[in-house]
Amino acid sequence: MENERIKKQFEFIREIDKEKNIKRQNYLSDGVTRENDAEHAWHMAIMAILLSEYSNEPIDVLKTVTMILAHDLVEIKAGDTFAFDEQAKLSQRERELEAADYIYSMLPEDQGKKLRALWDEFEAGETPEAKFANAMDRTQPLVLHAANGGKMWSEKGVNLTQVKKRASKIADGSKELYDFAFETIISPNVASGKIKDE
Amino acid sequence: MENERIKKQFEFIREIDKEKNIKRQNYLSDGVTRENDAEHAWHMAIMAILLSEYSNEPIDVLKTVTMILAHDLVEIKAGDTFAFDEQAKLSQRERELEAADYIYSMLPEDQGKKLRALWDEFEAGETPEAKFANAMDRTQPLVLHAANGGKMWSEKGVNLTQVKKRASKIADGSKELYDFAFETIISPNVASGKIKDE
Repeated sequence: MENERIKKQFEFIREIDKEKNIKRQNYLSDGVTRENDAEHAWHMAIMAILLSEYSNEPIDVLKTVTMILAHDLVEIKAGDTFAFDEQAKLSQRERELEAADYIYSMLPEDQGKKLRALWDEFEAGETPEAKFANAMDRTQPLVLHAANGGKMWSEKGVNLTQVKKRASKIADGSKELYDFAFETIISPNVASGKIKDE
Repeated sequence: MENERIKKQFEFIREIDKEKNIKRQNYLSDGVTRENDAEHAWHMAIMAILLSEYSNEPIDVLKTVTMILAHDLVEIKAGDTFAFDEQAKLSQRERELEAADYIYSMLPEDQGKKLRALWDEFEAGETPEAKFANAMDRTQPLVLHAANGGKMWSEKGVNLTQVKKRASKIADGSKELYDFAFETIISPNVASGKIKDE
């Protein structure tokens, strides 16, 4: 029985290795390599630890980090949905719900339920931890874009309205981080024309 | 002043993006792509959360996860040292100490000191958290090797004595995980000849 538990845990751990093959649209700071989901989650997790002092509300850091580390696991089955692809976003929720049923059922029931509840909480974005995790999810790409000269923004013709809409979730988690990101990353990239100001 | 703090934090966050370009010798479960340090740390962090119940001693999970997320940051400057390259390992400590001075000094002093102390603790491997983090560092590659048919082991001609020496750190953190890994991963790969039994 105990052996069944550890076996399930190792099968899950083996399965989630596939998250390293899920490519995002964003380029790393080198401006060449596209980031994958595992790298993105690792980066966000360290950011959450270092930046939790700016959260609008007090947060449980371990809960936030756990939420972050697991937040994209559904993409192993559902694929990455590009943030500015409005068509793909229409089917995103349905695809990800199916994927969540699959991936979390691989774990022992108690752990599967716990991680699934954290994913639901992240998606709902209402608790202090979910708000801060979502703020990291929106801040982390800005760091990459700032480093590589806004390559994805200019390639995809992204405009200021779109960037502001996505970045608004940063303010929900941390007003201070939003202000800093707006002033030091978004504004200069509008000025340089990397983000279209229509 | 406050602005100086957040600026330093963002410069550090931007710098550590480079960890995604530090390649390891291990192949992912697909048997094709070599893993990088950020992917490895992400995988280990989720493992620590799921497997902490098997630790020989009670651990502070957030401390362990933080240690894990940051444990390879020195490799941004020092490079990855292959686990079975005895020559490279002679200079590893010196290269990594220099790198640690560089990377952790980028952060605000309090945070730099905290992360540096965690790295020193990981390297010393004496506290319950450091023992468990090191156990994850040795278990995670076994999961990949098991999934891809021991490709790195056979390519590099790794033998059982070498594998056992590295795996002994798993037992220091968790006797139960060591026994499971030995029985379900190491033994079958000796039997199949992927690990040389000289």
